Amino acid sequence: MSSFKSWYDAHKNSYLDDFCTFLRFKSISTDPAYKEETLRAADWLCAYLQKIGLQAKLWETSGYPVVFGEYFAGEECPTLFFYNHYDVQPVDPLELWTHDPFSPHVEDGTVYARGASDDKGQCMYTVAAMGAFLALAQQKKVNIKYFVEGEEESGSEGATEALKRYKERLRADALFVIDAGMPARNKPAVTIGVRGILGLEVTCRNTNIDLHSGMHGGIVLNPNRALAKVLAGLWDDEGRVQVPGFYDAVRSPSAEEMACLDLSFDRKEYAQEFGVRAFTPEAEREGVRQVNWLGPTLEINGMCGGYTGPGFKTVIPAVAQAKVSCRLVPDQDPEKVAQAIEAHLRAQLPKGLELSVQVEQGAPAYRVSPKSQAVQRASHALTEAFGIPAQCILCGASVPIVGDLAAASGAETVLVGVGLDTDDIHAPNEHFDMERFEKGFLTIANILEAYNVKIS
Amino acid sequence: MSSFKSWYDAHKNSYLDDFCTFLRFKSISTDPAYKEETLRAADWLCAYLQKIGLQAKLWETSGYPVVFGEYFAGEECPTLFFYNHYDVQPVDPLELWTHDPFSPHVEDGTVYARGASDDKGQCMYTVAAMGAFLALAQQKKVNIKYFVEGEEESGSEGATEALKRYKERLRADALFVIDAGMPARNKPAVTIGVRGILGLEVTCRNTNIDLHSGMHGGIVLNPNRALAKVLAGLWDDEGRVQVPGFYDAVRSPSAEEMACLDLSFDRKEYAQEFGVRAFTPEAEREGVRQVNWLGPTLEINGMCGGYTGPGFKTVIPAVAQAKVSCRLVPDQDPEKVAQAIEAHLRAQLPKGLELSVQVEQGAPAYRVSPKSQAVQRASHALTEAFGIPAQCILCGASVPIVGDLAAASGAETVLVGVGLDTDDIHAPNEHFDMERFEKGFLTIANILEAYNVKIS
Repeated sequence: MSSFKSWYDAHKNSYLDDFCTFLRFKSISTDPAYKEETLRAADWLCAYLQKIGLQAKLWETSGYPVVFGEYFAGEECPTLFFYNHYDVQPVDPLELWTHDPFSPHVEDGTVYARGASDDKGQCMYTVAAMGAFLALAQQKKVNIKYFVEGEEESGSEGATEALKRYKERLRADALFVIDAGMPARNKPAVTIGVRGILGLEVTCRNTNIDLHSGMHGGIVLNPNRALAKVLAGLWDDEGRVQVPGFYDAVRSPSAEEMACLDLSFDRKEYAQEFGVRAFTPEAEREGVRQVNWLGPTLEINGMCGGYTGPGFKTVIPAVAQAKVSCRLVPDQDPEKVAQAIEAHLRAQLPKGLELSVQVEQGAPAYRVSPKSQAVQRASHALTEAFGIPAQCILCGASVPIVGDLAAASGAETVLVGVGLDTDDIHAPNEHFDMERFEKGFLTIANILEAYNVKIS
Repeated sequence: MSSFKSWYDAHKNSYLDDFCTFLRFKSISTDPAYKEETLRAADWLCAYLQKIGLQAKLWETSGYPVVFGEYFAGEECPTLFFYNHYDVQPVDPLELWTHDPFSPHVEDGTVYARGASDDKGQCMYTVAAMGAFLALAQQKKVNIKYFVEGEEESGSEGATEALKRYKERLRADALFVIDAGMPARNKPAVTIGVRGILGLEVTCRNTNIDLHSGMHGGIVLNPNRALAKVLAGLWDDEGRVQVPGFYDAVRSPSAEEMACLDLSFDRKEYAQEFGVRAFTPEAEREGVRQVNWLGPTLEINGMCGGYTGPGFKTVIPAVAQAKVSCRLVPDQDPEKVAQAIEAHLRAQLPKGLELSVQVEQGAPAYRVSPKSQAVQRASHALTEAFGIPAQCILCGASVPIVGDLAAASGAETVLVGVGLDTDDIHAPNEHFDMERFEKGFLTIANILEAYNVKIS
């Protein structure tokens, strides 16, 4: 079955075409304005899975449907479970895109579009590899379950429902979440854990209406001033989160984890890539990987209050808002962290102001043992595909559904993927190159082959 | 000439019609998108001045034109100079308006529209009173100069140019800036000073592009976090501005001023009117009028960074911004205050981040002696129009052009007007009632008559 490479070469043009078609759907799950487009993406993908030989259908949920595909080889065969998502992040600031984010632009083998890397690119090579496996394998001795959700960027509510409802059908031996990256182009890696997430919307109100800052300046307490104060009070000058209890449940990494993880980081290259003018004091002090992989972080993702358009409007706004999120590590509980943050904000807030803290999303972190079979086989598959030994890493980002997937399937759950930090995911000009598309394709094919061969 | 009242009654319907026509022009000077509409407002007003008997023309500037109208009675006659502005503030948040801000809605004698009070309402009754005076006066022994600018809400650059260019033609004995208010419906007042203004746009940048807050969280210093810190550091918890030197040039009010000013303030009524949940600690400590009239204030008018739309976007933005403004009192120098604020922000900023501080507008405060003839006559005119003794007040807001107007005209400069704090200027559902339109009309007519009679 080393014919995967020649199969790929024979089909790569049509893979690119299909990839571009998939990218054209504006499947922004966080913004209700894109509902139709998101649903159309699901329909298209479902039909595509049928075409490659899976039994596929849409699992309706209270949110966007899950596209579920299946191949049944036999009760005695091992069951592999793959996961992707078909939704994407919003595109603003739109003016920084050099091409329309939903009209894929291909240049020197690289595809520029929203979702090119996260996660439509990784979804498409997974589908392609399954199709190739089903077409090429003489004996098919592996069951495939394929779960592609549409709300990864907005809390995975529908997928969580589906995992509960269809739990019986989701038991598996190994689960591969194909929404991960590697530290560099020549460093294939298996991700043995993701951080959890907690998203909070903080709203601070004083008056019923906006007021003129001349007539009323100095009289009513400006919610922008109050919000800046409580937000600034979340950290000390050394970057330590000041919320009492925030770090309490943080578990120290095991010796096994520390032995397999490569914590090295090229700070200079990174600074150049993103134009970083200032690292955080905590990263300077503790190390980048230590902070981003092994510790929890807290960020203000959005902050707004008053007039922010062109020119000046001298207003004291009625309301100021912030979107704040944490990345969590084992064993932090999102609910407890949310309560601690809310209590801290309230304690810091000037008296009288109204504060509302809304939990928008929450999921705990997930870790799998580096000694598990799934990690070992994924590592081997990557090593074969790249011709470079794969390593273990953690992921600073969150795939909120990972914990639920692991629980529903009862499977060893591993994150595999060929994303790069430089893909500009969640940012303007997101991109993904077809060279990595091929490597990803070969990796998934190798995984399928590894489990298939073991049985036959 | 007590026939002003009957003249008004005979013309009030057409005054309302003309007022509504004037309001329909979307003359938002701060937003370049409304350029055409702003120019059309100037054209319409110019034609209107000609109709009431003034020699009127547009004075072109590098910004929006000044509409200038004149009536010449004779070299020996006193010259009265009136000022208004035809531009208005932006309208957002649009969703809080109960009617379209540029389709005037009249209910129970009150007109709801952007600019209804600030300053198109006050402009229209001034024009109406001039027209009535020119039509009714048997002997016209007063020269009128009328200056209506189109950039009051955006720094008055064009008007400042025009004041320099046409200085020779602008000498006057008394100057009435008709862009002021009174403390309550039954408290007519002459405003003997306005605060100055300083508007700054503060931009804080770290990376070249927005980054994913999972992949990069804790590594790069989030400009939202840095901006919240430096903004919060502008005040202590007692509301004292922490910028070194900020209060240095503040002049204590004279005994004469303190004797004539009514510093009383109904805090309860005010809180109810605007739904105030929290007064500033400085207003609690020093008194509302003391803080808003006699002291300088500093406000964050706008603050934004990262994703602030619907849903969540877990981003570390490249840039965070704030619009900050001060209201200044004599003898604070806007330029010096700007330098002090910038220096303070830079000193507080975490190392490495890029900060730009752009001065968007600046004008010093202005005060006139309560003993001047212009103050005395304006006070008398208001007393006559309202049948209630007028008092002296200060204005917490800024009319940046006042100092330049006073300098160019060499005139005693007084602010007169019938605006109310409750007019929702600069806010949704701005409004103005025709009862005050009439009182304003009578006040201007009385002023013209007072100077006319003195000479004849």
